[in-house]
Amino acid sequence: MTSTSTQAGNAVNRQWRLAARPKGLPKATDWDLRTEAIPEPEEGQFLVRVLYISLDPAMRGWMNEGRSYVPPVGIGEVMRAGGVGRVIASKHPEFSVGDHVSGIFGVQEYASSDGRGVIRVSPETAPLPQYLSVLGMPGMTAYFGLLDVGHPVTGETVVVSAAAGAVGQLVGQIAKIKGCRVVGIAGGTEKCRFIVDELGFDAAVDYKSEDVRAALREHCPDRVDVYFDNVGGDILDIVLTRLARHARIVICGSISQYNNEGPVRGPSNYMTLLVDRARMEGFVVFDYAVRYAEGAQALAGWALSGKLKAREHIVEGLETFPDTLQMLFRGENSGKLVIQVA
Amino acid sequence: MTSTSTQAGNAVNRQWRLAARPKGLPKATDWDLRTEAIPEPEEGQFLVRVLYISLDPAMRGWMNEGRSYVPPVGIGEVMRAGGVGRVIASKHPEFSVGDHVSGIFGVQEYASSDGRGVIRVSPETAPLPQYLSVLGMPGMTAYFGLLDVGHPVTGETVVVSAAAGAVGQLVGQIAKIKGCRVVGIAGGTEKCRFIVDELGFDAAVDYKSEDVRAALREHCPDRVDVYFDNVGGDILDIVLTRLARHARIVICGSISQYNNEGPVRGPSNYMTLLVDRARMEGFVVFDYAVRYAEGAQALAGWALSGKLKAREHIVEGLETFPDTLQMLFRGENSGKLVIQVA
Repeated sequence: MTSTSTQAGNAVNRQWRLAARPKGLPKATDWDLRTEAIPEPEEGQFLVRVLYISLDPAMRGWMNEGRSYVPPVGIGEVMRAGGVGRVIASKHPEFSVGDHVSGIFGVQEYASSDGRGVIRVSPETAPLPQYLSVLGMPGMTAYFGLLDVGHPVTGETVVVSAAAGAVGQLVGQIAKIKGCRVVGIAGGTEKCRFIVDELGFDAAVDYKSEDVRAALREHCPDRVDVYFDNVGGDILDIVLTRLARHARIVICGSISQYNNEGPVRGPSNYMTLLVDRARMEGFVVFDYAVRYAEGAQALAGWALSGKLKAREHIVEGLETFPDTLQMLFRGENSGKLVIQVA
Repeated sequence: MTSTSTQAGNAVNRQWRLAARPKGLPKATDWDLRTEAIPEPEEGQFLVRVLYISLDPAMRGWMNEGRSYVPPVGIGEVMRAGGVGRVIASKHPEFSVGDHVSGIFGVQEYASSDGRGVIRVSPETAPLPQYLSVLGMPGMTAYFGLLDVGHPVTGETVVVSAAAGAVGQLVGQIAKIKGCRVVGIAGGTEKCRFIVDELGFDAAVDYKSEDVRAALREHCPDRVDVYFDNVGGDILDIVLTRLARHARIVICGSISQYNNEGPVRGPSNYMTLLVDRARMEGFVVFDYAVRYAEGAQALAGWALSGKLKAREHIVEGLETFPDTLQMLFRGENSGKLVIQVA
């Protein structure tokens, strides 16, 4: 195991640990950059050199106390994060030095693992960041959320918010593959151009410069059958006024509300659920774990044949983590936000 | 047709017409009590002497402008209302003088009808007000809303708000028939006693005197699988914090919000739909028209065998309509609120 240090170049593991429960937007003092010894894998474990770290809006929720779909990250703990890395030492029968792997490795340079929740990935099949994007959790989230909760039918109109984000860009394209009319809501000209010109959405609504209500009226003449919501707030309330009968709203996230210091703003127009006999339903992608193979096969097939494109927004350097995370909440990323560690 | 006047005793038809779109709670000046000539049925029509008029929270929505599941009542029009009456003159092949009928006859003493939406009812089978209650739309609403939207399963916990109201009292009893644990939320000791002691609910929560959150924790140890919501507002928000995984929220109404002068208060805790993989779904009972026979058969069977009880709250006199309607919004009725006209 002494070889670890040699392979790593430097003999330390830099980690971002949660220092305080943030109020509002997480700030520098909510984090501690700590330098630890690189862990030595015990019997049944292996050591991963983390190469890419996934930054997700959901991280904001994990920083809060209280009941949620996963326990909160404890104060003083390494921040939870998905990542892709390379096995550099192993006492585990199923993972060998040189394997590339994806798992919940945390915001750090090295992680030891017992293999639970870790899958092997191939840099020959696809660039590694794609395993945090179309071939990873955003892909699964889009696939199962849209198809299993949204139930889009050919010819229906699907609207997705945060449409140039990690999940949104995939939701829209999968809806197109399924024969739907697709309208994306995103912030800024470039993102709107991207989803229409490069991803093939039928229309985009720039919430920063357009009247979203008027734009949806124009682009959704038959109203909205499926709304895949990543943002909550005003946009959810506006879409609620444009539902088709028996519409399905998929609640995937509510990024506009994650940094509220007061209460979340609930959807004032929720009674259109009654008027339009519509449904609003939440889901957690982890529930589909037993079907990930199905999702992976479909997503990889579409991605490798060019039907499903995904943009990653890669920022270099573990040290940038607190600033890079803020990009998500400011809408500054386009595509899947990833930190390249090494 | 001259016999009409004779049968009626007085030769006029008193009607409550909508005079203004109310702001907040409807007040006396929002209504006009008009006296018209009793209509003469034309060929294919019949004349109904209205005996009982149904007062429903949904009426408040019909008084507003804007898109809903039915068009608003126009200014100057007779207020829309369901009712039960007796045919006193007929030029219709299928309805004869002496028939008892149920339909949308409006808030008035006499109504002419072409028979659309009108069904024959029997005072021998059940007291007439029950055709506006367990054997009428509240029954259908409870039956289809609970069973088709809520999908309760034996052993699950069902919570219903406005539990001593027209629909709530039936929802809870149908859930008991289906083998569920049933907790009702109602205002005041008497209503709570009624739903537990007389209707057989497992528990009641008095929102006027109890901490609803603590009471739900106590009475729903396995959390809430189905919530049938008639009230919205605070109570919806509290129940959202107590959902079981894959819970279903049936949106039937939101009486706490109907008289808001500002925006409706949306459910701040709606993101528990994600945490708990839960669903919130609205419905409109009219969509089940093709299945009313099924509902009627089940409801009548339970009602006649004593398994399903229903209390009607009967107020005498058409002239009381504006005041009696306010009772709904003040929570002063217990059971189905009905005006006895004649």
